[in-house]
Amino acid sequence: MTLNVAVLVGSLRKGSYTRMLAQALAEVAPDTLKLSIVEIGDLPLYNEDLDGDAAPAAWTRFRSEVKAADAVMFLTPEYNRSVPGALKNAIDVGSRPYGGSSWSGRPGAVISCSPGGIGGFGANHHLRQSLVFLDVPVMQQPEAYLGGVNKFFDDQGKVTNEDTRKFLTTIMTTFAKWAETNRKR
Amino acid sequence: MTLNVAVLVGSLRKGSYTRMLAQALAEVAPDTLKLSIVEIGDLPLYNEDLDGDAAPAAWTRFRSEVKAADAVMFLTPEYNRSVPGALKNAIDVGSRPYGGSSWSGRPGAVISCSPGGIGGFGANHHLRQSLVFLDVPVMQQPEAYLGGVNKFFDDQGKVTNEDTRKFLTTIMTTFAKWAETNRKR
Amino acid sequence: MTLNVAVLVGSLRKGSYTRMLAQALAEVAPDTLKLSIVEIGDLPLYNEDLDGDAAPAAWTRFRSEVKAADAVMFLTPEYNRSVPGALKNAIDVGSRPYGGSSWSGRPGAVISCSPGGIGGFGANHHLRQSLVFLDVPVMQQPEAYLGGVNKFFDDQGKVTNEDTRKFLTTIMTTFAKWAETNRKR
Amino acid sequence: MTLNVAVLVGSLRKGSYTRMLAQALAEVAPDTLKLSIVEIGDLPLYNEDLDGDAAPAAWTRFRSEVKAADAVMFLTPEYNRSVPGALKNAIDVGSRPYGGSSWSGRPGAVISCSPGGIGGFGANHHLRQSLVFLDVPVMQQPEAYLGGVNKFFDDQGKVTNEDTRKFLTTIMTTFAKWAETNRKR
Repeated sequence: MTLNVAVLVGSLRKGSYTRMLAQALAEVAPDTLKLSIVEIGDLPLYNEDLDGDAAPAAWTRFRSEVKAADAVMFLTPEYNRSVPGALKNAIDVGSRPYGGSSWSGRPGAVISCSPGGIGGFGANHHLRQSLVFLDVPVMQQPEAYLGGVNKFFDDQGKVTNEDTRKFLTTIMTTFAKWAETNRKR
Repeated sequence: MTLNVAVLVGSLRKGSYTRMLAQALAEVAPDTLKLSIVEIGDLPLYNEDLDGDAAPAAWTRFRSEVKAADAVMFLTPEYNRSVPGALKNAIDVGSRPYGGSSWSGRPGAVISCSPGGIGGFGANHHLRQSLVFLDVPVMQQPEAYLGGVNKFFDDQGKVTNEDTRKFLTTIMTTFAKWAETNRKR
Repeated sequence: MTLNVAVLVGSLRKGSYTRMLAQALAEVAPDTLKLSIVEIGDLPLYNEDLDGDAAPAAWTRFRSEVKAADAVMFLTPEYNRSVPGALKNAIDVGSRPYGGSSWSGRPGAVISCSPGGIGGFGANHHLRQSLVFLDVPVMQQPEAYLGGVNKFFDDQGKVTNEDTRKFLTTIMTTFAKWAETNRKR
Repeated sequence: MTLNVAVLVGSLRKGSYTRMLAQALAEVAPDTLKLSIVEIGDLPLYNEDLDGDAAPAAWTRFRSEVKAADAVMFLTPEYNRSVPGALKNAIDVGSRPYGGSSWSGRPGAVISCSPGGIGGFGANHHLRQSLVFLDVPVMQQPEAYLGGVNKFFDDQGKVTNEDTRKFLTTIMTTFAKWAETNRKR
């Protein structure tokens, strides 16, 4: 049995390390997980006045894609010691309309990264606070604060360091168990 | 001497209580403060690829308005136990380009609100964490977690309860001193 | 099958509302859970110099009791917008010595309370941040920020309000499922 | 004019890096600041039943020393992604009895450290959340998340790396200005 995993990437720039990380994680994931990026860059800023039957098409598309997933992974850099606005906006869009959240009950993981040593700790835990409200049970260990992410990849986007590759593999193996244990039934 | 205060409103819907709060606070502010709302609803999601000389006009407009202010106030509801994506996006836009943050050194205040009793506590403190990085010295007391905000106003947007009005006045009086003490010189 | 639940109470005063809450939760818990308070008031402040073979008896007692449990519940007031020092100290004691944490893998719940309306939100989420590190999978919903806790009980410590009683029952019923799903195997 | 600075050290073990840091910071502080460690290791866990006229002598001693200070510095390792229980307990003791907080209005700084790369980020910001409530205006920049602290010192406790020494000097110089600007008058 395969679980579909919606992957959200918190950085919008094309060559982002976070997006490369999504690819790297997909490569080491066990066969029981199928990872697909759900795009967030075209979502208009959430405004309740626009929601409802005539909601922007991008919101509707996004909500459908999240609802179709069995599990969710959040990969994110840190902007100003917190979650990038673009990613938080996606979370807000997915949480509405009131009573119709797309997130509820889908098991999740949070992986933060940064070029510096702190590895996006602030973004990671702010995200976790939102996921309590959204009823997304989040894998606790291994925590993933990936520092020095700018040195992870070669020109083809392959992870060069063996220890890093092993850690990413451990993340995905553990998450597969977590998602299987906590998936909606 | 008058200090110009940039006011950011975290909710985009037209009839938002947070926006009414901005008006109410302006009315009780001492003469030494001039409050003006800086709009955030038209800011494209931050994407480093778009930044630089050809940055979106809305970003440039926003950055200029923040830079022209002597102090900043953040009024915000809570979305999913954190800062609304739209407001966080504005903070991100204002923090860039690298080395050219619009926020640095401007004294600030954070006021959160909600219809329920918790008063946006989660949004309030997540915002404060970002403001550490952005070097915005934030007024500590009075803390403002305004619960029951949906019952604050009459049809003309006037605050009906005398205690509430007094508390808003105390906030503004204390902030005037805070902003004067900590303004850039 | 019955799961043993270690209950930690964050307030040390005898007549504390948090302790009364422990009793009230035990009364509405399903038969599959057996709740027992693990005392924290006699634990010396954690100091690595004192740890090891000659560790204080209270530390050893505490660690044994947590290790004997299948699941853990943290009931706590908020002190200064965070976890009471006494409760955090207990968490620190249980997390050591290095490599021998008593917490790992035990499913948990966090319930915060306060006389005021905010219900210990700050303590609740600070605790959750520690529990990520400690590999305690924490129930996300229902969140429990119990405001007005000083009005919950009659002279015999019984919960007087029916809605409150129902909410406490829902907490325990949901936690029973959470603990069963995520218990160590 | 000299400001007295109460320094709290979050680790109780004798040879703690955090305590060595206190010494190192005192050495590079400008003449306008006089740093003194206020000990926290003998404070009984806070229990409201014990407070009042017959409060433990260690509490009374601690409260007097904090009240005698013009400013406060918190130096802390991270325990389980948050503030060590011993330090949080000291904060709680100083905040009481109700209405008689020892902290109010004293400008402060938070400096966290760890052997690893994250530098105590979690402890740092949890502490800051408490200091909002306690009305301690906290210096925002430079943020101090001191990673690799176990390699800072030689056998005599001297900071060996010139860049580290410069950063510690910048912290103290900036704090001197912050404390002067925001001290109680």
